[in-house]
Amino acid sequence: MFFHIKELQYNAKPERPDPLFAKKLQEVLGGQFGEISVFMQYLFQGWNFRGEQKYKDMLLDIGTEEIGHVEMLATMIAQLLDGAPANVQEEAAKDPVIEAVLGGMNPQHVIVSGLGASPTDSVGYPWNSRYIISSGNILADFRANLNAESQGRLQVVRLYESTTDPGVRDLLSFLIARDTMHQNQWMAAIEELEQKEKSPVVPSTFPRELEIQDVSYKFMSFSKGTESSEGRWAKGPSMDKQGQFEYVENPTAMGQVPILNQAPAYIHNTPVPGQPAPEAEKSHYQPPKG
Amino acid sequence: MFFHIKELQYNAKPERPDPLFAKKLQEVLGGQFGEISVFMQYLFQGWNFRGEQKYKDMLLDIGTEEIGHVEMLATMIAQLLDGAPANVQEEAAKDPVIEAVLGGMNPQHVIVSGLGASPTDSVGYPWNSRYIISSGNILADFRANLNAESQGRLQVVRLYESTTDPGVRDLLSFLIARDTMHQNQWMAAIEELEQKEKSPVVPSTFPRELEIQDVSYKFMSFSKGTESSEGRWAKGPSMDKQGQFEYVENPTAMGQVPILNQAPAYIHNTPVPGQPAPEAEKSHYQPPKG
Amino acid sequence: MFFHIKELQYNAKPERPDPLFAKKLQEVLGGQFGEISVFMQYLFQGWNFRGEQKYKDMLLDIGTEEIGHVEMLATMIAQLLDGAPANVQEEAAKDPVIEAVLGGMNPQHVIVSGLGASPTDSVGYPWNSRYIISSGNILADFRANLNAESQGRLQVVRLYESTTDPGVRDLLSFLIARDTMHQNQWMAAIEELEQKEKSPVVPSTFPRELEIQDVSYKFMSFSKGTESSEGRWAKGPSMDKQGQFEYVENPTAMGQVPILNQAPAYIHNTPVPGQPAPEAEKSHYQPPKG
Amino acid sequence: MFFHIKELQYNAKPERPDPLFAKKLQEVLGGQFGEISVFMQYLFQGWNFRGEQKYKDMLLDIGTEEIGHVEMLATMIAQLLDGAPANVQEEAAKDPVIEAVLGGMNPQHVIVSGLGASPTDSVGYPWNSRYIISSGNILADFRANLNAESQGRLQVVRLYESTTDPGVRDLLSFLIARDTMHQNQWMAAIEELEQKEKSPVVPSTFPRELEIQDVSYKFMSFSKGTESSEGRWAKGPSMDKQGQFEYVENPTAMGQVPILNQAPAYIHNTPVPGQPAPEAEKSHYQPPKG
Amino acid sequence: MFFHIKELQYNAKPERPDPLFAKKLQEVLGGQFGEISVFMQYLFQGWNFRGEQKYKDMLLDIGTEEIGHVEMLATMIAQLLDGAPANVQEEAAKDPVIEAVLGGMNPQHVIVSGLGASPTDSVGYPWNSRYIISSGNILADFRANLNAESQGRLQVVRLYESTTDPGVRDLLSFLIARDTMHQNQWMAAIEELEQKEKSPVVPSTFPRELEIQDVSYKFMSFSKGTESSEGRWAKGPSMDKQGQFEYVENPTAMGQVPILNQAPAYIHNTPVPGQPAPEAEKSHYQPPKG
Amino acid sequence: MFFHIKELQYNAKPERPDPLFAKKLQEVLGGQFGEISVFMQYLFQGWNFRGEQKYKDMLLDIGTEEIGHVEMLATMIAQLLDGAPANVQEEAAKDPVIEAVLGGMNPQHVIVSGLGASPTDSVGYPWNSRYIISSGNILADFRANLNAESQGRLQVVRLYESTTDPGVRDLLSFLIARDTMHQNQWMAAIEELEQKEKSPVVPSTFPRELEIQDVSYKFMSFSKGTESSEGRWAKGPSMDKQGQFEYVENPTAMGQVPILNQAPAYIHNTPVPGQPAPEAEKSHYQPPKG
Repeated sequence: MFFHIKELQYNAKPERPDPLFAKKLQEVLGGQFGEISVFMQYLFQGWNFRGEQKYKDMLLDIGTEEIGHVEMLATMIAQLLDGAPANVQEEAAKDPVIEAVLGGMNPQHVIVSGLGASPTDSVGYPWNSRYIISSGNILADFRANLNAESQGRLQVVRLYESTTDPGVRDLLSFLIARDTMHQNQWMAAIEELEQKEKSPVVPSTFPRELEIQDVSYKFMSFSKGTESSEGRWAKGPSMDKQGQFEYVENPTAMGQVPILNQAPAYIHNTPVPGQPAPEAEKSHYQPPKG
Repeated sequence: MFFHIKELQYNAKPERPDPLFAKKLQEVLGGQFGEISVFMQYLFQGWNFRGEQKYKDMLLDIGTEEIGHVEMLATMIAQLLDGAPANVQEEAAKDPVIEAVLGGMNPQHVIVSGLGASPTDSVGYPWNSRYIISSGNILADFRANLNAESQGRLQVVRLYESTTDPGVRDLLSFLIARDTMHQNQWMAAIEELEQKEKSPVVPSTFPRELEIQDVSYKFMSFSKGTESSEGRWAKGPSMDKQGQFEYVENPTAMGQVPILNQAPAYIHNTPVPGQPAPEAEKSHYQPPKG
Repeated sequence: MFFHIKELQYNAKPERPDPLFAKKLQEVLGGQFGEISVFMQYLFQGWNFRGEQKYKDMLLDIGTEEIGHVEMLATMIAQLLDGAPANVQEEAAKDPVIEAVLGGMNPQHVIVSGLGASPTDSVGYPWNSRYIISSGNILADFRANLNAESQGRLQVVRLYESTTDPGVRDLLSFLIARDTMHQNQWMAAIEELEQKEKSPVVPSTFPRELEIQDVSYKFMSFSKGTESSEGRWAKGPSMDKQGQFEYVENPTAMGQVPILNQAPAYIHNTPVPGQPAPEAEKSHYQPPKG
Repeated sequence: MFFHIKELQYNAKPERPDPLFAKKLQEVLGGQFGEISVFMQYLFQGWNFRGEQKYKDMLLDIGTEEIGHVEMLATMIAQLLDGAPANVQEEAAKDPVIEAVLGGMNPQHVIVSGLGASPTDSVGYPWNSRYIISSGNILADFRANLNAESQGRLQVVRLYESTTDPGVRDLLSFLIARDTMHQNQWMAAIEELEQKEKSPVVPSTFPRELEIQDVSYKFMSFSKGTESSEGRWAKGPSMDKQGQFEYVENPTAMGQVPILNQAPAYIHNTPVPGQPAPEAEKSHYQPPKG
Repeated sequence: MFFHIKELQYNAKPERPDPLFAKKLQEVLGGQFGEISVFMQYLFQGWNFRGEQKYKDMLLDIGTEEIGHVEMLATMIAQLLDGAPANVQEEAAKDPVIEAVLGGMNPQHVIVSGLGASPTDSVGYPWNSRYIISSGNILADFRANLNAESQGRLQVVRLYESTTDPGVRDLLSFLIARDTMHQNQWMAAIEELEQKEKSPVVPSTFPRELEIQDVSYKFMSFSKGTESSEGRWAKGPSMDKQGQFEYVENPTAMGQVPILNQAPAYIHNTPVPGQPAPEAEKSHYQPPKG
Repeated sequence: MFFHIKELQYNAKPERPDPLFAKKLQEVLGGQFGEISVFMQYLFQGWNFRGEQKYKDMLLDIGTEEIGHVEMLATMIAQLLDGAPANVQEEAAKDPVIEAVLGGMNPQHVIVSGLGASPTDSVGYPWNSRYIISSGNILADFRANLNAESQGRLQVVRLYESTTDPGVRDLLSFLIARDTMHQNQWMAAIEELEQKEKSPVVPSTFPRELEIQDVSYKFMSFSKGTESSEGRWAKGPSMDKQGQFEYVENPTAMGQVPILNQAPAYIHNTPVPGQPAPEAEKSHYQPPKG
C-alpha cells in the first residue's frame, strides 16, 4: 500500500518558462528509459518476486522513490509551459521569429494537456509497458535495471547540456546523482548475485551439457575484416571461466537448405504449376504422442 | 552491404508439426527480447558508431549473425505449422478435444500468414523498434546488449522446457549455446571498456562536481522494513570506488510543496471561483536571454 | 513524494491456482480501464492541477490508493499462476484435455514474466499512456474519471461472474466496493463543479455568441427511422437550460462541394491529363499577415 | 448501410494556407478525442446494441453525422496545406526565418500524404481503436460519450484561440456548436437512464450485498493533508442515496504482507541460496473442481 | 455528408453461436487488411484527392460501401457471441472440454465489449491508421488498393474454409464476390491510369536523367544461387519498355567504407582512448547557404 | 545465413550537416514504406515460401539488398547530424533564428541516439511489423511489393525535391533508380504469375460458384453523383474476362434490419425496462454438431 506527502523529493522550479525545453524534458519522464519506465519496472519486479525478501524490499524502495521522480519532472514541465501561448497567431503575425520558435513546441502541451506534462516522450509518443521487463530471474532483471539507469543518466546529462536555466539544472543535478547511486546499486547487487550463482551466464541452472557446447565460446566474424579479433571477446579464457574464446574468421553453415512443403489446398496459395495442392485432410494436426 | 547463402547456420527441422508450440516460439523471434530485437540493435549500434573500429566491426559481425537466427526460427515455425488446419470445424465436430487444442493456436498463422512465421511475439503483438537502443555511448549500449542476451537465453531455456520434440530442442540447444557466447562476449567488452573509462558510471565524462553529490551514494528506504539494508548496496565502498554506500532508513523531502500558477484564459480550464483567469498576453513566451 | 508499506490494502489470496483466470484478470490491471489507467490518470491530473488545492489533494489521495490496487492484482495474478507448467508437453501427451485447457493461457506468463503479472491486458496488449487524459479542465477530466470508474466496475463485475474461487471473489468484492465509492465521488465532485460554472457545457468560459448557435440544440437524424425522436434529447429544454432541443428529421448540407486545388509539381502526383501541374514557386508558403 | 452526398455538412474553406495550423488541427481529426474516435465509438455502440431501439437509432444518427465531421476537417487540412513547399531548402537559403517556420510542419504532410490530411493526431501519432469503448452497458458508455464530447469541445476551443483565419474559425464555430448539442444530448440520455436504473452506480444490477460494503462510501486520504475533506465527496449522503460519505484521514491496510512461493525449477529463476527449486511436477495445474 | 439506413447491405445471420469463430472473424473487420482499413483508406484518398472528379466520386462510392461491410461483420460477430458465457467456471467444472474450448475465446469479447464486436483483429490487436495510405498519387494508391483487396479476399476465403455454418458462409460469399468486383475495379483503374502516364513507374513525372540509370534495370543476386535468373525480371525488355533487364550474378559495392566522425563532447559518448572529444562549439549547425 | 562487407552499396556522403533533413530522411528508413519495411517484407516472404524455388531465391536476393539500403540511409543520417548541437540554448540566446531552425529537429536524435539514425519515421514513430505482409499467396504479396516500391519511390522523389545537397541527392538518385528496377521487377513477376493462374483475382483457386456472383461485377454508386460511371470499371468486360462491368446508380439493401438478442444477466448491461435479462444458463455455448 502506498502513501503520498505533498513535498517534492527535491526542488523543481525553473527560473523562466521554456516550452521548447519542456518538450525535450518529456523524454526522461515518459520515454523508453524515462522515470515511468524505471518505477514500473522496479514495482513489477518487486510484486512478482519469489525469493529472498531483501531483494523484494529493495525493489519496492527504489520503485517507490521513482514515482516521486516522475512527480518532480511533471511539476517542472508544467512550470516550463507557463509561457506557452495558445493564440500564437496574433503574436507571430508581429514577429515570425517568435512563431518559428514556438512552432517547435509539442502542440499537445496546449491542445490536449492544457499546459501540463503528459506521459509521453520528447516526440509525443506515449509510454507503453513493453518498455519494461520483469522476468522473475533477478540476475537478468538487474542487468536490465543497470542498463536503464545507464541510458537514463546519459539522457539526463544530455539534457543538462541543452539548457542554461539554473533551476532546471538544479533538478537535473539531483537526478544525475540519484542515477549515480542507482548504477552503483545495481552493480553491487549483480556482483552479489553472480557470486552466489554457479555461473554469470543467465540462467545458471540450465544443464550445460544440453547446449551445443561446440559453439559456446566461438566469436564468429560475419562482417568482412578482422578488427573484431582484437577484443577481449576473441581470445583468452571466457568470462564465465568455463571455456576459451576462439575467433572464427570464416564461419560456415551447419544447417540444411530449407525447402518447405507446399501448403494444403484450403490455404489458397498461388498454385505451383503442374502440381495439385495437397488435400486438406492429409495434413491435419495430430496431437503429439508422448 | 550484405550477402545471403541458402544454407541455415544450424539445423531447423522439427520431428512433427505442433502449431501450439509455433505460437510460443514466436516470442524469441519477434518479441521484446527476440532475435529481431538483437539483430536490429546490433546493426544500428554498428552503423551509428563513432569510435574505435574494432567495436564497429564486432557489432556488425554479431548483428549479421542474428539475421540468420531469425531465418532459422522462421523456418522452424513454418514447419511446425504444417499441420495447422483451416477447416477445423469439420474435424472438431467429430472431436471437440481437437477443436479445443487448436483453439489455442494463433489464428493469424492461418488467416494472415498462410502457415508462415510472422514478425510478432507469442501473443501476436508486432515487433516495434522502441524495443531497441543505440545511444552512441557503447558502455551503456553493451549493458543493454548483455541484458538482451540474458533475457533471451532465459526465454529460450523456458521454451526448451516446454517441448519434447528432438528437432526443436536441437535448434534451441544451438541458440542457447550462442547466447552463452554472447553473454560472455558482452561481459568481456564491458570489462574492457570499464577499465578504460574514468568510472563505470555512465557517462563517465560528466563532471562529478556538477551533480548533487550528497545523494550519490545513499540508499533510501521508501518501503517500510529494513530488509534492504542487508545488501551490498547499503554499506561499504561504492562500486565506482568514489564513495561509501549509506543506508537512509527514513528519507525526507528536500523540495517544495508544488503550487502551479493558474492557467491563462485561452486555455479554458475550469475557473477558480472568485478569481479571473490571467490574461493571455500576460503570460506569453519570451525567448530566453543569454 | 511517495512511501510504501508492505501490507496490502486488502486480502489477495486465491484458494487455488488458475492460470486461465490469471490471463483474464490482467484486463483490470493493465487494460484500457484497468488500475494502471486510473492511478496514472489521477496522478497526472493532480500533478498538472492549477486551481483550488482541495481538488489536487483529492486527486493525489485517490491516485495513490490506486497504485495499491495494482499491487493487489499483481499479487493475485502471481499466485494464480503458481500452477502454470512450462513443460506442458509431457503432461499433455498423457491428457490432451489438459493440454487444451492450458493452451488458453497467456504464453508470456511463462516465457516472459516467469509466472508473474505483466502490465498488459487480457489479450497481452501492453498498457499505453494514450489511455489516460489530463486536460487541465477538471470538469472535463472528472467526467473522464466517472467513465473510467463505470467501465472499471463493470469489468470487475463480469470477472466476478467468471470465477467461483472464494479468495478471488473476496478481492473483487473489495474492488467493486471501492469503485462504488469512486463513482459516487466523481458524481459528487461533478455536481459541485457544475454548480460553480456558468454552464455544464465544457468549457463554460467560451463565449456562446462565437458558436453557430443555430445548431447548438438540434438533434439531427442521419440514420433513417425516427425512433430516436422519442428520447429526452429530442424535445424539451436543453440540459444547460439555455435552449430547446429540436428534432431534425432530414438534416441538409450547409457546406460546399469540396474541390481541391491540383498539387504543385514537386509533389509528383498522378498528372491530370491536359493540365500541367502548377509550378512549385507559385504555391509557396507565405507567413500570415496580422 | 451508408450513403454519401458530395456537399459538406458545413463550410470548410480557409482564407489562406497555413501548414503549421494544419498540423495542429489534426488533433481533433485523428487524436484521442478527435472525430474519428467519436464516429467509431458511436457506430460500434450502435452496432453492438442489445436493448431499446431508440438508443440504437440515436447512436447511429450521431455516429453517421460524425463521419461527415471528419470529412470537413480533412478537407480543411488539405486546403491549409496548399502552401506547403517540398523544396523548402532553396527558399530557406534565402530566408532562414521561413525555413524555421516551416520546420514546425508535420513532414509527413509532404512526404507521405502529398498535401493531404492524415488519420493521425497533432504529433503524427496514428489513430488506434483502443481510444474507443463499446461495453454493452449504455449508461457506462454514455458517460464515455459525454467525456469525449467534453474533451473534444475543449480542444476545438483551444484551437479556435490559436488561429485568426476567419474561414477556419467559421468551421470551428460550427463544431463547437455541435459539441454543445452533443454534450446536452448525452446529459439528457444519462439522466433518462439513471432514472430507470435502480442506482446510478454502474452496473446497477450487481447485488450490493456481494460487495464489501464497509468501504463503499469511505473517502480515504492517502496523500498527507486534509484539504480533500472539504469536498462534497467527503461528507453527507452519497450520490446514489444508499449511504453516507465518510472521511478516513489515516487509512490502514486490511490485507496480508504478500510472500510468493518460490518458482518451480523449469522457470529457471535466480536460485534461492540453500533451497532447491520445487520440482516441476509438484506444482502442475489441476482443473478446478466444482 | 453521410446517411445511414437500417437495412444491412446483405444478410448477416449465423445459424448458431460460435464464440471461437467470432474471434477469428475479427481479422477481416479490424485487421491490417480488414474492412476498417479499406473504408478509411478509400475515404481519405477521396477527401484528399486533387485531380479528375470521377476518381474522387469513385473512391467515395466504394469507401461508403465498405462502412456497410464493417456493419455486417460487427452484426455477425455480436450474434456469434450470443452463446459466450462469462461464468464458464461452473459449467467447465462439470466438463473440462467445454472449458478448454472456451479458453480459446477472446476474453475481451466478454469483459470489455459485453458480447459485442470490437475494432480489433483476431489476436485482439487494435486497428491503427498506419495500416492505410493516401499519398496523393493515385496510381500508387490504386496499387495499394488492389493489394488490400487481394489480401482481403484471400483472408475471407480462408475464413470460409474454417466454418461450416451456412449463415456465416452466406455472408462471406457476398464479401468474396464484392472483393472480386473490387479487384477488377482497381485493375481497370490502374490500366486506365498507366495508359495516361508516361510510364508505369511511379511517379512518372520525375526526370529519368536524374536517377542513376546504370542500375535502373539490373537484377542483383545477393542470395547465392542463380534460380532467380529464370524469371521474367532477369531478361528481356523492362516492363516500362525503357530498358532491358540484366542479371548481375555477383553485385559489387560502389560506395565507401563508412567511418563516422567522433561525437562532440556534449554528447558524452564512451571516449576514444588517446583522443579528446571534439569541442562542442566546433561542430555547431550552420544554416545552409543557397 | 548472412554475411556483411564493409563497403556500402553506393555513396552516402552529404556535403554538409543538416539535422532538419536528417529528420525528414528517417521516413524512408523507418517509415511505413521505408527500407526496413521492404527488407523485412521480402525476407519473411522468402523464408515462408512454399512453391517454386526461383521465387524464393529472388525474394532473398532483393531482401538482402534492402538491408544494405538501410545501412546507407543510417550512415547518411548520422553524418547529417554531425552539426546538431545539444547545447543549443547558449547559441540560440545569441540568435533566436538558429534556435528556431533547430527547434524543428527530432530531439531524440540528440537525447536518445546521440547523433545517430533511429529505426523510426520522420515524426519519430517507431517502425513496427504490422507494416508488412507475407501471406503465402505470392500473387497477393507481389502486389503488396509493387505498392511498397511505388510509395517508396514517390517518397524518395519528394525528399529529393526537398534538398539541394549534392551528396544527399546522389544517394537518393541511386535509390530512385533501384526503385525503378524494383517496380519493373514486381510488374514482371505479377505478369508471369497472372498468366499461370486461372484468373488474376486472388485467390484464383476458390470455386467461383461459391461466391454470390450476382454482385461480382457490379459497381455500386454509394456517393451521389454519377461521375464514377465514366471509368473503365463501370462498363465493358471485366479485367478477369469472366463478366461484364455494370453500373448500379442506386444500390439497394439486400439484408435484414439487425436486432440483437438481449444480453444474458451475467453481462450486466443496462437493463431493458419491463424485461428481465435472460438467465445465463439458457444461452450457454454448445459445441457445434457436425
